[in-house]
Amino acid sequence: MGKEGKGNFQLKTPKGTRDWSGTDVVLREQIFTTITNVFKRHGGVTIDTPVFELKDTLTGKYGEDSKLIYDLADQGGEICSLRYDLTVPFARFCAQNAVQNIKRYHIAKVYRRDQPAMTKGRMREFYQCDFDIAGQFDPMLPDAEILRIVKEVFEELPEWKGKFTIKINHRKILDGIFQICGVPEDKIRTISSAVDKLDKSPWEEVRREMVEDKGLAPEVADKIWTYAQLKGGKDVVEKLQAMPEVVANESAKQGLENMALLCDYLEIFDVMPALSVDMSLARGLDYYTGVIYEVVTEGSAPSASTKDVAKKEKKQKKSADPDEDRSNDPTIGVGSVAAGGRYDELVGMFSGKPIPCVGISFGVDRIFSITKARLSESQALRPTEVDVFIMAFGGGKEFTGMLPERMAVAKQLWDAGIKAEYLWKTKPKLQNQFKAAENGKVPWAIILGEDELKAGKIKVKEMGLPDGHPEKDGVVVEKAKLVEEIQARLSGKASLPDRTV
Amino acid sequence: MGKEGKGNFQLKTPKGTRDWSGTDVVLREQIFTTITNVFKRHGGVTIDTPVFELKDTLTGKYGEDSKLIYDLADQGGEICSLRYDLTVPFARFCAQNAVQNIKRYHIAKVYRRDQPAMTKGRMREFYQCDFDIAGQFDPMLPDAEILRIVKEVFEELPEWKGKFTIKINHRKILDGIFQICGVPEDKIRTISSAVDKLDKSPWEEVRREMVEDKGLAPEVADKIWTYAQLKGGKDVVEKLQAMPEVVANESAKQGLENMALLCDYLEIFDVMPALSVDMSLARGLDYYTGVIYEVVTEGSAPSASTKDVAKKEKKQKKSADPDEDRSNDPTIGVGSVAAGGRYDELVGMFSGKPIPCVGISFGVDRIFSITKARLSESQALRPTEVDVFIMAFGGGKEFTGMLPERMAVAKQLWDAGIKAEYLWKTKPKLQNQFKAAENGKVPWAIILGEDELKAGKIKVKEMGLPDGHPEKDGVVVEKAKLVEEIQARLSGKASLPDRTV
Repeated sequence: MGKEGKGNFQLKTPKGTRDWSGTDVVLREQIFTTITNVFKRHGGVTIDTPVFELKDTLTGKYGEDSKLIYDLADQGGEICSLRYDLTVPFARFCAQNAVQNIKRYHIAKVYRRDQPAMTKGRMREFYQCDFDIAGQFDPMLPDAEILRIVKEVFEELPEWKGKFTIKINHRKILDGIFQICGVPEDKIRTISSAVDKLDKSPWEEVRREMVEDKGLAPEVADKIWTYAQLKGGKDVVEKLQAMPEVVANESAKQGLENMALLCDYLEIFDVMPALSVDMSLARGLDYYTGVIYEVVTEGSAPSASTKDVAKKEKKQKKSADPDEDRSNDPTIGVGSVAAGGRYDELVGMFSGKPIPCVGISFGVDRIFSITKARLSESQALRPTEVDVFIMAFGGGKEFTGMLPERMAVAKQLWDAGIKAEYLWKTKPKLQNQFKAAENGKVPWAIILGEDELKAGKIKVKEMGLPDGHPEKDGVVVEKAKLVEEIQARLSGKASLPDRTV
Repeated sequence: MGKEGKGNFQLKTPKGTRDWSGTDVVLREQIFTTITNVFKRHGGVTIDTPVFELKDTLTGKYGEDSKLIYDLADQGGEICSLRYDLTVPFARFCAQNAVQNIKRYHIAKVYRRDQPAMTKGRMREFYQCDFDIAGQFDPMLPDAEILRIVKEVFEELPEWKGKFTIKINHRKILDGIFQICGVPEDKIRTISSAVDKLDKSPWEEVRREMVEDKGLAPEVADKIWTYAQLKGGKDVVEKLQAMPEVVANESAKQGLENMALLCDYLEIFDVMPALSVDMSLARGLDYYTGVIYEVVTEGSAPSASTKDVAKKEKKQKKSADPDEDRSNDPTIGVGSVAAGGRYDELVGMFSGKPIPCVGISFGVDRIFSITKARLSESQALRPTEVDVFIMAFGGGKEFTGMLPERMAVAKQLWDAGIKAEYLWKTKPKLQNQFKAAENGKVPWAIILGEDELKAGKIKVKEMGLPDGHPEKDGVVVEKAKLVEEIQARLSGKASLPDRTV
């Protein structure tokens, strides 16, 4: 990056953006495909909204982070801005089209004019990958479906099975607990933000913030701590339901009933083993109204001594938007890899008619980085999907290069849908053809020899076999049966029995 | 669109943009998948570049159409613009990374602040779908591969097989012919643009433009016409090669040798039947240096009386960029559905080191519109991919709704990767469940009955069977074998033989 081109021209992408290419883009596409397959399994439909919206559409949705919105230049006509997330465009879409219910997914880039930190993975252009359910349904059924989707995604991503935890809480339980503890109504949101830091800061630091910075009575703070430490499975819900002061609070009571029902559903869906009901989870965004959740993984949770972290936290003013905290500093972990919750009021901000919504956003950039690190230890990605490289064997003055013959074989394979390449040289050296196949990690070679071809035969060779393997030099097959032979080998079946070895 | 929201707020997408949803987005995704599969079959790798580039990167690449570029507001820092096409970012990528060779595809949105004509399909945000090959190879081999890709794409798109023609010409042949006819060197580009109108205007009108507007001698124009009428297969190349004055021209001679070789290769690849060597094809863009081609289809070629068209042409100043001519006016056709050519100099504009390139851009918006029109006559698209809808059968006071049972079946199917839904109601009416399945065009229903379930049985029903069909009311199968049963039915195999009818 930053290489100079002709003259004074800077040959680079804009600050905070990057090109994706090579095996990085291959892996990212695999992640998208895995996630999309899960979304489709649950009846998801995709929508595609414009990359920019009327500026008014975004105004008043992001609080002080509105300053991070990219505006288009005023070139006459409407004033527009690049989208900041996919949720507000989704709410605009629902309101504009008076959508009654939808399960929609959207995988697309969003834009934030933040101070980029490329090494930490904080970019100005990055992908979001959202699934949201809008509509009026019986309680906790869409919520359960979302959490089942989360489980399927992380079980199906390579190297994630068994390595993730879904932390869950409920805004109504939290609000109820704050009331019970005696937090004044106007301090509930700010105290909630303080509680949300408990995954990164020790209690002493959070307590100090509550008492010194936010003016909470110390005994109220200490009471919050007795609840905030609760975490576990459904037992946490039952424990709270057994506390008379808790169920006496209407908000907490309702939230706990919701959570108990959700746990029943998640029991059926086999999601409970991955779940952690966690009273210290609060989430930053104001618009959540029900369940809230985030997914953490090995290496995404904080790993440094809590004191160091507390110091860092003090120095860095934390952004109000939880997604902004995309630090990859290994001493503090990367934060959550997916997060979401129920937000029943957002669509109403556009149309005046609220539609209940619940959703999840997968942080594909973080998921990509972690997956890449885990994979690189075990397996290498193929840069292309080409399965067969067609080569000509020969040399010397007599060697024609067999270009028409290689092209004819390529055509035959393409006609059958097989991914195949050959070298664009009339007389290629065998060595260069092997090199090209190896560079592309192509698993199979077809090698044409003039004598064999005259006899209607063709050689098929698996690349990368160890010395001494009986098929190291390839096997000779009938040219007429080439496609079936290759298809059998690609589908992992034993090759055709009647081939000539 | 244009509905009013709360207060003065306008609930709409920006001018010239639209949301994609419903079966439109399903069909468009199918088109993307078909095209991507072909690209991958030929070893294509994708790259993803930022949606905006440094303004300097785009400057000086689009001539007078530069005024259509969207700029980002100056909010401090670098000055950026939204990409206008995918070709210039690709050239920037190749130069920046000193790419020696690549087969890259890129499917993404581009932005042009043109006067939108939504009914004609001319949008300010639209998709391009490009495949380009960069690198030094033996002559015409990458060019042949691109044209084979074009053939495969249009043969595999639904309702396109046999309905497209690839028009092809070569800049060097054209330039040679112009020299032979006596076109002054400084008029070659502008006369070339006039010739390019022959697909929409009659010769009389093009001749008038050449002579009256562009000051060409009438006998020169008439000589051009003798060549411009030539069209056909390889015979056109042979006819020109048999003309002594043509082969005496070095440029024409080289171009014809190229074309003859390309035709030999396309013969092997079975592309010739779809090809029309057409001496009236010139293409607008300046940067082409070798073969040029465009794909036309029934309904994309002009259909009105040529006089009317000529009048229209006179009124509308034609844009210098051929992609701009996206009119859907049925009297003049939609123009080409894919176009491209060889451009050996563009990368050199960035790095000073030219890399030979050849490419194709598919006009997915046009392809979408034509495919949609053709499909709507015969078949309906499914809005989701859900294969199974799980229902509870029952009613009256005793009816529990069997929610846990429906959820358990859903889990069982999801675990097996089967796409399934159920109604998010604790006690749904059977009628509403059928309605939901019908609305989603879900092909299969699983119907739970309390008595059957107790006996370990479950009913499977194909939706939409005609009255009198033996399986109209469904078939009862073992609950334990449900997944195999569904998988067998979805894979199109006969259902398992041992099921209970």
